[in-house]
Amino acid sequence: MSGKNVATSSSIRKSELHSSLSDPVLDTMNFLNEITLRYPGAISFAPGRPYDGFFETEQVLAHLRRYLDHLTDHGASPAQVRTAVYQYGPTAGQIREIIADSLRRDEGIDVPPESIVVTVGAQEAMMLVVRALIRDPDDVLLVSSPCYVGITGVARLLDVTLGAVAETTDGFSLANLEAAIRAERAAGRRPRAFYLVPDHANPSGSTLPGPVRAQLLELAAREHLLILEDTPYRLVSPGEPVPTLKALDRHRSVVHLGSYSKTLFPGARVGFAVADQPVTGDDGRVGLLADELSKIKSMVTVNTSSLSQAVVAGALLAVDGRLSELNAKAAVHYGDAMRRVLDRLAERLPESRRAELGVRWHEPSGGFFLGLTVGFEADDAALTRAAEEFGVIWTPMRYFHPDDGGRRALRLSVSYLSPEEIDEGITRLVAFIESETSHRDLEP
Amino acid sequence: MSGKNVATSSSIRKSELHSSLSDPVLDTMNFLNEITLRYPGAISFAPGRPYDGFFETEQVLAHLRRYLDHLTDHGASPAQVRTAVYQYGPTAGQIREIIADSLRRDEGIDVPPESIVVTVGAQEAMMLVVRALIRDPDDVLLVSSPCYVGITGVARLLDVTLGAVAETTDGFSLANLEAAIRAERAAGRRPRAFYLVPDHANPSGSTLPGPVRAQLLELAAREHLLILEDTPYRLVSPGEPVPTLKALDRHRSVVHLGSYSKTLFPGARVGFAVADQPVTGDDGRVGLLADELSKIKSMVTVNTSSLSQAVVAGALLAVDGRLSELNAKAAVHYGDAMRRVLDRLAERLPESRRAELGVRWHEPSGGFFLGLTVGFEADDAALTRAAEEFGVIWTPMRYFHPDDGGRRALRLSVSYLSPEEIDEGITRLVAFIESETSHRDLEP
Repeated sequence: MSGKNVATSSSIRKSELHSSLSDPVLDTMNFLNEITLRYPGAISFAPGRPYDGFFETEQVLAHLRRYLDHLTDHGASPAQVRTAVYQYGPTAGQIREIIADSLRRDEGIDVPPESIVVTVGAQEAMMLVVRALIRDPDDVLLVSSPCYVGITGVARLLDVTLGAVAETTDGFSLANLEAAIRAERAAGRRPRAFYLVPDHANPSGSTLPGPVRAQLLELAAREHLLILEDTPYRLVSPGEPVPTLKALDRHRSVVHLGSYSKTLFPGARVGFAVADQPVTGDDGRVGLLADELSKIKSMVTVNTSSLSQAVVAGALLAVDGRLSELNAKAAVHYGDAMRRVLDRLAERLPESRRAELGVRWHEPSGGFFLGLTVGFEADDAALTRAAEEFGVIWTPMRYFHPDDGGRRALRLSVSYLSPEEIDEGITRLVAFIESETSHRDLEP
Repeated sequence: MSGKNVATSSSIRKSELHSSLSDPVLDTMNFLNEITLRYPGAISFAPGRPYDGFFETEQVLAHLRRYLDHLTDHGASPAQVRTAVYQYGPTAGQIREIIADSLRRDEGIDVPPESIVVTVGAQEAMMLVVRALIRDPDDVLLVSSPCYVGITGVARLLDVTLGAVAETTDGFSLANLEAAIRAERAAGRRPRAFYLVPDHANPSGSTLPGPVRAQLLELAAREHLLILEDTPYRLVSPGEPVPTLKALDRHRSVVHLGSYSKTLFPGARVGFAVADQPVTGDDGRVGLLADELSKIKSMVTVNTSSLSQAVVAGALLAVDGRLSELNAKAAVHYGDAMRRVLDRLAERLPESRRAELGVRWHEPSGGFFLGLTVGFEADDAALTRAAEEFGVIWTPMRYFHPDDGGRRALRLSVSYLSPEEIDEGITRLVAFIESETSHRDLEP
């Protein structure tokens, strides 16, 4: 046994470990967690947790049972059903047909099941795609900035060079992407792919309008750039969503990353990549990028839990693949929450006052996040004051900038709060903003 | 939609992708799969599949229910139970106490739950540990050779320098490890850790005797080398196992990697790392290596499926943490299978004939694998002849050698075959060996 008071010859200095572990983002996220623990009475707009009010534990058992029955109905013997749950399945996943069917019915994405790799959440899908596409230090991954920390984390873990494509106040900017591609090429580097969240982005909350999607796809085809389309916040706003980039993709420019974490349930850890790009070997044989992702997956997690896949498949079967239907109530919930946040903000900060304070926001129709520009440095010290003096917590936007941006901005997450918490939380937040701005210089 | 006949501007050359995808091991594994598909009538000693005859699908539901009841019994409200299944849990896992308890009762490994990270199988645990420990190209990971392809795969994925420590006919060699450490240091590199499977290794089948374990631990402490102890084949042989390296570890030299894939069930994809090594930051703060592994996990899979964790926990609770008890029947099954393979080999190849043919093997008491030295090149061409002409499939041992070794050896996996298949399979294998050796030069 290795108890607590034994001699330790194996003490490790952190500086001996991989550089990704010294990344300041980890410390800042840690700081956010500490603040949350230290001020339990504060209303927190920080965690991007899905609302779980529509979820019942017993559903899991029903979904699992439904999938097992589905196998039986399709001719599987009891021994084959047992094997499907018990054994390792194919590395690329065992529910690819069901996912492909759902994508076709619900999203108009028509791809063969062979182009899908089932992953341990979209996070693993990012890891697989980035690892496959980035060969050496001259290969660059471009990311929309501010940006989900999961993709920058993968890049740091794999020592991948990142290029930031700054969002404007309108969100994604085609001109900035073009400029970034040109700049990388001029520096002798190869921009291999561009990562973005086109729907209700984390952290900015912005959504790409349909025409901009078409322009982005044209640019990608022209520049031979792959688009990594991450879609965790599809189907979490009411009404008809804009078509995905993948549904509009005529040139197989898009690798589509999907997640069931914000819709079915987070605890399943099931996501997927759609990678129908042809890959040509030295011997002239052509396969799919999905095959290459599977090979990498065999070295990362080998398989996605059969059990989790079974439950996800059972849930999809229950609604004939129409995930949007399954998620309709939750989508209304998120839409209402966002509307309430926007209404309360507008009430407490009328336009004239907003201008004086240097506060700006846009108007998402749903999703989890709202980006707020403010007139002061929204740093860890400001966060501590907000929690301690005003009982409200938010996330500094600078955490999400791979470059130096986002210093006067913060992220509000609205997904997990009750209407009462939103009302009180926005009151506190506005009081904090008023106090903070009066103490400090206004934004120039 | 991106159908099959659309213009493709995104064709990728494989040479543009990461080098791990051009690794010959992937092609050879692929070749093995192709052979298996091409000769469905062949008896295959290739797949390392756990035997599933003792598994019933309904057990999964019972285990899940037991864990949920356990939470309720410990004071969780229905909403808290829902959250435990539905939401993301802590990145390090939500069943660490139950795993720590099981390790203490079953293995005499006494570590705090905080030193455990629950992972998506032991494969992810390898990924996390290797990523954490290897900082730059001067850091070397030493591996017992022949070696499980999962660890060499992780090394290739992360562009990590490998050093091979050759096994002898007796298995692990302390002298070879010492020589490897000295050689790496002489070349200006830092051997950071040594990976091995001390029980019923994959692929050689060898087990480290108790006294050698003590010597290995002394060496590790003296050389400040971490041992990565991978234990997938614990508890798959009858009788009392030799204590794990971690149970004997007095200096926190051992990072212990565990898996429930060969015992509870593969489809859950739950493993874990025990990493109780202290890590000291630049600011003097001391944490555990487990904390650092969790940070890396947050960039790889974020969480291990709550559902899979719940089922594993429920199974452990059913036997009060005594996994060995749960697995007793399977252990007898594997012991019987191995005994039968050894008996049939000895009958069909008496000692005198064995010597003439240059065939040798050792005598594992259980586990999944047996290494067989033969008197001919056991390559893909030989494998094709075995499948086509003799109806028997095995794995060339060279697949498992990071260096050039194992050319005249093969791996037999005994875990998944019935007694009748073993009898007929060994008859076919011996006929193949006889034919192969008479055609070719005998081993010098």
